[in-house]
Amino acid sequence: MAENKLITPRKLQGFWELMPSDQIIFSSLLEKIENVFKQNCFVPLDTPVLEYSEALLAKSGGETDKQVFRFTKGDNDMCMRYDLTVPLARFVAMHENELTFPFKRYQIGKVYRGERPQKGRFREFYQCDADIIGNGELSLVADAECVKLFEKCFKALDLDVEIKLSNRKLLSGIMEEIDSSNEDILIILDKVDKIGKEAAIEELKNLGLDDKNCEKIINLTQICGKIDQILPKIKNYSQNELYQTGVKELEEVCMYLKAMGLDCTCDLSVIRGHNYYTGTVFEGFLAGKNIAVGGGGRFENLCSYFSNKKMPGVGMSVGITRLFDVLKADGYFDSQKQSETDVLLVNFDETLMGSLSLMNALREKGVKADILSEYKSFKSKMKEANRRGVKYVIIVGQDELDSGKFALKNMTNGQQQNLSVEEIVDCIKNDRM
Amino acid sequence: MAENKLITPRKLQGFWELMPSDQIIFSSLLEKIENVFKQNCFVPLDTPVLEYSEALLAKSGGETDKQVFRFTKGDNDMCMRYDLTVPLARFVAMHENELTFPFKRYQIGKVYRGERPQKGRFREFYQCDADIIGNGELSLVADAECVKLFEKCFKALDLDVEIKLSNRKLLSGIMEEIDSSNEDILIILDKVDKIGKEAAIEELKNLGLDDKNCEKIINLTQICGKIDQILPKIKNYSQNELYQTGVKELEEVCMYLKAMGLDCTCDLSVIRGHNYYTGTVFEGFLAGKNIAVGGGGRFENLCSYFSNKKMPGVGMSVGITRLFDVLKADGYFDSQKQSETDVLLVNFDETLMGSLSLMNALREKGVKADILSEYKSFKSKMKEANRRGVKYVIIVGQDELDSGKFALKNMTNGQQQNLSVEEIVDCIKNDRM
Repeated sequence: MAENKLITPRKLQGFWELMPSDQIIFSSLLEKIENVFKQNCFVPLDTPVLEYSEALLAKSGGETDKQVFRFTKGDNDMCMRYDLTVPLARFVAMHENELTFPFKRYQIGKVYRGERPQKGRFREFYQCDADIIGNGELSLVADAECVKLFEKCFKALDLDVEIKLSNRKLLSGIMEEIDSSNEDILIILDKVDKIGKEAAIEELKNLGLDDKNCEKIINLTQICGKIDQILPKIKNYSQNELYQTGVKELEEVCMYLKAMGLDCTCDLSVIRGHNYYTGTVFEGFLAGKNIAVGGGGRFENLCSYFSNKKMPGVGMSVGITRLFDVLKADGYFDSQKQSETDVLLVNFDETLMGSLSLMNALREKGVKADILSEYKSFKSKMKEANRRGVKYVIIVGQDELDSGKFALKNMTNGQQQNLSVEEIVDCIKNDRM
Repeated sequence: MAENKLITPRKLQGFWELMPSDQIIFSSLLEKIENVFKQNCFVPLDTPVLEYSEALLAKSGGETDKQVFRFTKGDNDMCMRYDLTVPLARFVAMHENELTFPFKRYQIGKVYRGERPQKGRFREFYQCDADIIGNGELSLVADAECVKLFEKCFKALDLDVEIKLSNRKLLSGIMEEIDSSNEDILIILDKVDKIGKEAAIEELKNLGLDDKNCEKIINLTQICGKIDQILPKIKNYSQNELYQTGVKELEEVCMYLKAMGLDCTCDLSVIRGHNYYTGTVFEGFLAGKNIAVGGGGRFENLCSYFSNKKMPGVGMSVGITRLFDVLKADGYFDSQKQSETDVLLVNFDETLMGSLSLMNALREKGVKADILSEYKSFKSKMKEANRRGVKYVIIVGQDELDSGKFALKNMTNGQQQNLSVEEIVDCIKNDRM
């Protein structure tokens, strides 16, 4: 073994990996989101990371194909999943006769994009998805549930997030009215924020839209406010049937949301890139910052590539990897506790056995106790305890073992008390010292 | 869209995917194991699923190479991880100056084997690993900690598992004594259980071992019992130095384990396939069945392929995917609650808004409440509630909304009571009705 040529240990670029202190925090975020999903009666799904390329690329255009990690082994042509929605569609289509509908599932997992690594873009990242899939029909209550669920995720993370709600039928109706189905319009509208209204109008004109139609479509996307405020304005904005359906749906979803305690802001500039959204769409932004944290919407038919049954759905997704990155850069986690150890046991050579028994007793009672068995001298042990930033230390001498009373020391304020095991457990669990 | 040729929805063979009712149970097993790891002061690590092939295949022989999902994209030659140990080695080598040693990390994640699918073998499966890595040295207390941790995992799962402990230095010492380093000996010894002692002796003879040496090595692996019982027997079995070190280590680990409340059984037939184990080795079996559920051991040097620093380690792994499969086939989970919904709300058209408010109020108080918005008639809603096997139902009429008292019905025993929201929460959470 000693003869080996050493290999430089490297991680693939664009792949995420946290140091333990950050991972503890990140894992706790995932856990909080998962609890919200469970609390709202969504059931877990855990599809494989690999799928048949045929299935995974069924709905994609050429762009996705290029971005995907694809390879063959034996007779199998496989891809790593690039989202959690296509695997969901494959799963639902496979099991449509066994599932209970509406099927409310969540999945928290890694997805893969073979794109060139760059700042803020990852090639492996987590998605936290929750979707409600109907069989044939799906009530708009489900849309409201997903928006509310999205809100709850951020409440659980203790983050202030603004949610903006719209309905794609409004824009589609206007596009129908002006007799244009050019999807480039959506791309331009999606970047009004960045390039400004004037530049957007210019680009729309370049697509062949006249002044009136440009104004009509741009002005729609400028409408923003609570549903009661904007309703008079949007009700008569167009008589197009699809548009009017969109208005009714938006109103209905807002009404359900109010019943669930959420008075949502409507913002008709919300588009959501995916071209499969057909009704409700929503997005979340960190309050006071223009940083998107996820969103979701309603799609007509989840399984169209796999089944002739109509399976409408609505879902939401939290972009947790990017969110964590932004919050960390912002110092949001700086004050959070990063040690997983409640108390360190400092023993002498002759009290090792007794210390192991004590450690075991504390752990069994739910206290995260650890021992410093690598450090020889008392001094080096105390130094290490200090360095690790652990709040409590127990010094385990023979007298302490004999009496069953141990010196618990609070390393923060220097206090020290002689306590029994039960008293130590109580003290540490309730942070009494 | 309607014009698409349909694609048959298929999952890749050998890849695991559970229906939600099973996934709920499986996820709860993972959660219990993770809690044990946390409780014992291990920190989480979440390495990428993909690694540079150079790093991942550094230590492997040709067998692993063949079994791995490997591909290139751009300039990168990548593999999907086939275990969680090599990524740990890569991580530790990358960050050896930033980590606190002993480094106690756990990782629960999927690993990939490109082998031909067959019963009981998966191409994607979960591993639950916990390891303690030292910098230069690592006390045998760490070995005892890993064995104890392994025991705790199964206690948390409420499973009766027999743990068998050995030390590889015993066998290596005997092999040294009889002047054979032929690794085929280990392969034969590893299957004595299957082929029987006589056949094993025959195979050993075919390797060129004489009768005496065959007996010596086979008889060693037949030794089994508590350390106090076997110690007189094994102490004088060989004077080989390595062997004697093994005896001392085994004795010491057993002593630490006893201090931690575990009187472990030693079984010198335990070998553990991996050729990197060099000291403590242990395995778990479902009590009364010859079904392996995982194990672990001590390795001399985790990072030898990446670094000149010596990083000894000891670890344990629970084979949770296979364990779940075996337990499920055994009917172990049949009686477990599979509904994630505590209570279903049955509303009338005119009470939908009030029902959504009630649902929201219940969820905020920690009750998993859901509503049947897809079912039109009262009758179809009650039928669906029955079909889903949910224990509690609330019928939400206008009178109930007006009075703030709701009829909570226990679907199991038919009891019904009129209760306020607070009383409902209390009743459901404490299962009082």
